[in-house]
Amino acid sequence: MNIDMIRAAAVRIQGHAIRTPLLTSNFLNEIAGRRVWVKPECLQHTGSFKFRGAYSALSALDPATRSKGVIAFSSGNHAQGVAHAAALHGTSAVIIMPADSPQLKIVNTRAYGAEVVLYDRDTQSREEIGDRLSAERDLTLIKPFDEPEVIAGQGTCGLEIAQDANALGITNADVIVCCGGGGLTSGIALALAADAPTLRVRPAEPEGFDDVARSLAAGEILSNEKTSDNICDAIITKQPGDLTFPILKRLCGTGLVISEDEALDAMAQAFLRLKLVVEPGGAAALAAALYRRDEVEGDDVIVTLSGGNVDPAMFARALARL
Amino acid sequence: MNIDMIRAAAVRIQGHAIRTPLLTSNFLNEIAGRRVWVKPECLQHTGSFKFRGAYSALSALDPATRSKGVIAFSSGNHAQGVAHAAALHGTSAVIIMPADSPQLKIVNTRAYGAEVVLYDRDTQSREEIGDRLSAERDLTLIKPFDEPEVIAGQGTCGLEIAQDANALGITNADVIVCCGGGGLTSGIALALAADAPTLRVRPAEPEGFDDVARSLAAGEILSNEKTSDNICDAIITKQPGDLTFPILKRLCGTGLVISEDEALDAMAQAFLRLKLVVEPGGAAALAAALYRRDEVEGDDVIVTLSGGNVDPAMFARALARL
Repeated sequence: MNIDMIRAAAVRIQGHAIRTPLLTSNFLNEIAGRRVWVKPECLQHTGSFKFRGAYSALSALDPATRSKGVIAFSSGNHAQGVAHAAALHGTSAVIIMPADSPQLKIVNTRAYGAEVVLYDRDTQSREEIGDRLSAERDLTLIKPFDEPEVIAGQGTCGLEIAQDANALGITNADVIVCCGGGGLTSGIALALAADAPTLRVRPAEPEGFDDVARSLAAGEILSNEKTSDNICDAIITKQPGDLTFPILKRLCGTGLVISEDEALDAMAQAFLRLKLVVEPGGAAALAAALYRRDEVEGDDVIVTLSGGNVDPAMFARALARL
Repeated sequence: MNIDMIRAAAVRIQGHAIRTPLLTSNFLNEIAGRRVWVKPECLQHTGSFKFRGAYSALSALDPATRSKGVIAFSSGNHAQGVAHAAALHGTSAVIIMPADSPQLKIVNTRAYGAEVVLYDRDTQSREEIGDRLSAERDLTLIKPFDEPEVIAGQGTCGLEIAQDANALGITNADVIVCCGGGGLTSGIALALAADAPTLRVRPAEPEGFDDVARSLAAGEILSNEKTSDNICDAIITKQPGDLTFPILKRLCGTGLVISEDEALDAMAQAFLRLKLVVEPGGAAALAAALYRRDEVEGDDVIVTLSGGNVDPAMFARALARL
């Protein structure tokens, strides 16, 4: 896993992924007590940064392997990213989703062209279903974060941040990244270490699901006690990955932890000041910049808005706080 | 008014205005029956394209004139654009606003650093107040659309559209523009005539306020009977401008007219498929692309989302239609 893989991924996704801008608002600067720069990956294809990693991974496969199809386990943003990236490569995708996934996510994943296979969380093993299908059809598994070409794809987001930060003269800033398994965070960290080495990457997570913050503090991989029951579902995983954690440990500052209410307030500010639709997990980094300012360092702060796949009811809940 | 003024404005706003991307969504393509490309000017500073024209006009003033301050009449997006552009130039702005303007718009315009002067629509003449203040303080009036350097600034949006369309190989497309007084529409039309001459600009307006569509059909400037009572308030003006109309007449195709419900539905689609917050008037062009597809021509369609300054209650009204 190195910067050359990220640069190669950037060449492959060029013209396929959205080159998102850095946005800013005086109103947010006032709340944060410093200049805030926002990387809106909610505007990425399929509504999250996950498309970058999925496209990178698909495009890195040799054509013969790719043509047999890919498979992924996901109820969320990775599912849509893989489905869309597979369609763009003219190959098939099987996505294994829990039968109780939100209907809209199932509908969307199918609409992106994937074959969705539903399983019962209580009675069926998704790995067993996946192994059987993979063996029968010779499918390639696209993991959500602990996969070099996926990390390389997410790292392209970091190359863009570095490019824009250098153009803007931003040299003393935390770069806060919404963090689940650490694919985006480690990819951005590698890119910045190469192209903007004075910037410091820091993961943001929800309270009670701060496995990365605790793992960084302990110097070893620690797990969350549970992996459900939080509105920031998009960034909740059991623990950081075996590939991602050593990168995070080497390159990241301490983790930032935010509450559900802070995520909702950050969504409301993104609506009001940035005109962006962000999901709760995608607002974690902005929430940290706005509401944990004493824990943030630097003249500027850069935050990822990692995704925008939120249903209207949850969005209304955020707006009701304005 | 010519393309060189637009190119000069582009140089002046470089690094100050957001260079917005072109976004797309398969889901919107299906509704529209062709590929849809979205220019999200809701992401522009102050939440609308108006910042481009305001910054262009301010930056074109000679420094001695500019230092005395500027004045504008507006209850909406132009007010915020002028206020912010003035602050960035280190000069003062007086904005004359109706006393019954939405409180948030007054608060925001002040927050951007302007001096807001309120007047009573029923008993006071805003022109009289403006003339008195301008004379006393030697302020320069920044008109909302019928002003060459404002049109030049809005035209920079067209240069960007042309650049991206050329890179994407889009050659046969209507470019639908949310149209009030015609500043953005005429600026984009001039830019495309120079840099992407096979694209056709078409104005979009709300039903009952289709002065531009009727004026284009008649070949002469016609007025609306009223200028209030429509949710698309941002793009409602009495009639096209004396400077803008001849440009529109020379370069634009027929006007497209949409209903309030179609504007709300387009806002809901922008939420769901683009993760963008758009105000009703800013959604008029997208509404035309999605819901008036039989009146649109070309393999592709490009639409401006001209602004996103919408209050939560109106946004909730749009989401309730999903």
